[in-house]
Amino acid sequence: MLIVVALGGNALLQRGEPLTAAVQQQNARRAAHALALLAERHQLVITHGNGPQIGLLALQQAASPETPQFPLDVLGAQTQGQIGYMLEQALREALLPHRYLATLLTTVEVDADDPSFHTPTKFIGPRYTAQEAQALAAQHGWVFREDGAHWRRVVPSPQPKRIVQLEVIQKLVAQGVIVICAGGGGVPVVRCGTALVGVEAVIDKDLATSLLARALGAELLVIATEADGVYLHYGKPNQTRLTRVTPAELRAHLTHFPDGSMGPKVRAAIEFVEHTGRPAVIGALHELARAVRGEAGTWVVPAA
Amino acid sequence: MLIVVALGGNALLQRGEPLTAAVQQQNARRAAHALALLAERHQLVITHGNGPQIGLLALQQAASPETPQFPLDVLGAQTQGQIGYMLEQALREALLPHRYLATLLTTVEVDADDPSFHTPTKFIGPRYTAQEAQALAAQHGWVFREDGAHWRRVVPSPQPKRIVQLEVIQKLVAQGVIVICAGGGGVPVVRCGTALVGVEAVIDKDLATSLLARALGAELLVIATEADGVYLHYGKPNQTRLTRVTPAELRAHLTHFPDGSMGPKVRAAIEFVEHTGRPAVIGALHELARAVRGEAGTWVVPAA
Repeated sequence: MLIVVALGGNALLQRGEPLTAAVQQQNARRAAHALALLAERHQLVITHGNGPQIGLLALQQAASPETPQFPLDVLGAQTQGQIGYMLEQALREALLPHRYLATLLTTVEVDADDPSFHTPTKFIGPRYTAQEAQALAAQHGWVFREDGAHWRRVVPSPQPKRIVQLEVIQKLVAQGVIVICAGGGGVPVVRCGTALVGVEAVIDKDLATSLLARALGAELLVIATEADGVYLHYGKPNQTRLTRVTPAELRAHLTHFPDGSMGPKVRAAIEFVEHTGRPAVIGALHELARAVRGEAGTWVVPAA
Repeated sequence: MLIVVALGGNALLQRGEPLTAAVQQQNARRAAHALALLAERHQLVITHGNGPQIGLLALQQAASPETPQFPLDVLGAQTQGQIGYMLEQALREALLPHRYLATLLTTVEVDADDPSFHTPTKFIGPRYTAQEAQALAAQHGWVFREDGAHWRRVVPSPQPKRIVQLEVIQKLVAQGVIVICAGGGGVPVVRCGTALVGVEAVIDKDLATSLLARALGAELLVIATEADGVYLHYGKPNQTRLTRVTPAELRAHLTHFPDGSMGPKVRAAIEFVEHTGRPAVIGALHELARAVRGEAGTWVVPAA
C-alpha cells in the first residue's frame, strides 16, 4: 500500500546534538534503516522537517552581513537540497539496489490572505537578547517574540492549500519510485496573477504532509517522532499513551498537545482521517515498522 | 526532439552583479523566457552551474566559525535546492500552465582514484590574501592557489562517470516532464562498498551535462553561455567566430579556449558529438531559440 511518512526533526538531529553534517548523516542512516523495512512491503513517499537547518542558514548568513541575505523561501529551498541529499544517500545505502529514489523540490501554495501573515507564531533561528532582537527588528523588519528567557524571530505559518508538484509526485509514485518531497513543509508560495511567488513563512510540515497524503490517496499517514505515541498528561505520574483513538476523541483532548510539538501532529492526523476515512499513526521512528503493523504508536482511526 | 540545455553561470548572475536573491530571480526570468520558447517545440532537460552560489555558502559559514561547517558535497546539494527553486519558479511563470516541471536532486559518481584528487584545480569561494589563505589551509587542510593578485581555495574536479538518478530522469522525460537536474555538475560521490559517499569536489557542469545528454540519448546538446559562440583569437582584432566545426577541427584549436571558461564547454561538446554522432551547439542564452534552429552560435557537427 501507499504510505506517506513524515519524519520529525529528530530523524536528522536528536535533542542536544550539534548540527554537524556527520551527526545528521548518522541519524539519517538510522532513519533510513527504519524506512527500508517499510519499503520492502510498501510504496513510500517521505517528507521531513527543516527547523534546525533553516535556522543554521539564517544564522550563518546573518554572521556575514556584507554578503547577500536570502529570504526564507530561498533558504527553505536550500534545506530541501541539503536534507534531501542526506536522506537519499542514506536510503540508497539501506535499500535493495534495484529501488528507485527521487528527491523533488516542492513548493506549496498558501493563501495570500491567510490570517497567520498578520500574527506570525512559528519560531525560527537562534535565540537573541532583547537588545539584539530590537536591533534586528529595526534593521530587517523582522518580528520577534519572547521564548523563555530569550527572544526569537517568529514567522507566519500559513495553512498549506495545494502541493504544486503533485502531478509529478503522482507520476513518480505510479512508476514505483520512492519520493522524498515537501521538505520543511514545502517552500510557501502565493498566487500573484499567473505566477507563484515565494513568501517569508514556514509551513508546518505535518499539515503539509497530511495534505499531500490526502491528495495522493495514501492508505496510511505515518507521523514519525521522538515519542512512542500520543500521551494524555504527558510527563506526569498519570500519563497515558493513547493506542487507538478517533478524531472526535482526539479533538476533545487538544489542550493536552503543545503547539510546538505534538499539537500539529495530532491536527494533521485528524485532518487526514476525517477527510479520507483512512487511518493515521503517530509513533517513534525506531519502531516504525511495528507501528505500521498496528503493534505500536497511536492509531487514529475513523469512528466505527 | 529531446534537448539537454546547460545554463552557464550567467543564467542567474551576470558579470559584476551582486549575488542577491532579487538579481538571481530577475536573471532566472530572462533564462526562463529563452527556455520557454524552446519548450514549445521540444522536450527539455536543463542543467546549471553553481560556482558563485557555493562560494557564497562557503563564505557565510566561514564567517560563523562557531556553527557547524558543512563539507562541499552538502553545500552543493544546498545550491541545487536554491538554484533549482529559482529556475523552476521562473519557468513555471514563463511556460504554458499545462506543462509539468520537476527539480531533481542529482548525484554523480566519480572514480575514487581520479587523478584530480591529487591535483585540485577548480577555484571556488572568495579571494584571500596570502596570510588568510595560509591560516585557512592550516585550520581546515584546504589547498590554495594563486589567482591573479589573490589566493583562492582549489578543489578537485573529477571526471563525471555516472548519473546516479538517470533512470528517474528518464522516467520523467518519458512522461513529458521538463526536468531541472545535475545542478553544479551534480553532487560528486564515490563508491565505497555498497554505498555512494559524497566527496569534497566540484564536477564541471558542462562535462556532467554532456554525460547526461549521452545517457539520455538527447538529439542535441545545447551549452548556453555569455558569448554568442566559440571564437578563435577571442578579444583580438582577428577574432573569428566558428559557425560550424567538427570535433577534430576543435581539438586542433584547444589552446584557444581557457580552462576556466570556454575550455570545458568545447570539450563537453566534442565528447557528445564524438560519442553520439549528433550535434552540439554553444551559444548565447539570449539567442537560444535561434541557435537551436541553426541561425546562431557555434555548431559542432560530426565529420561528414
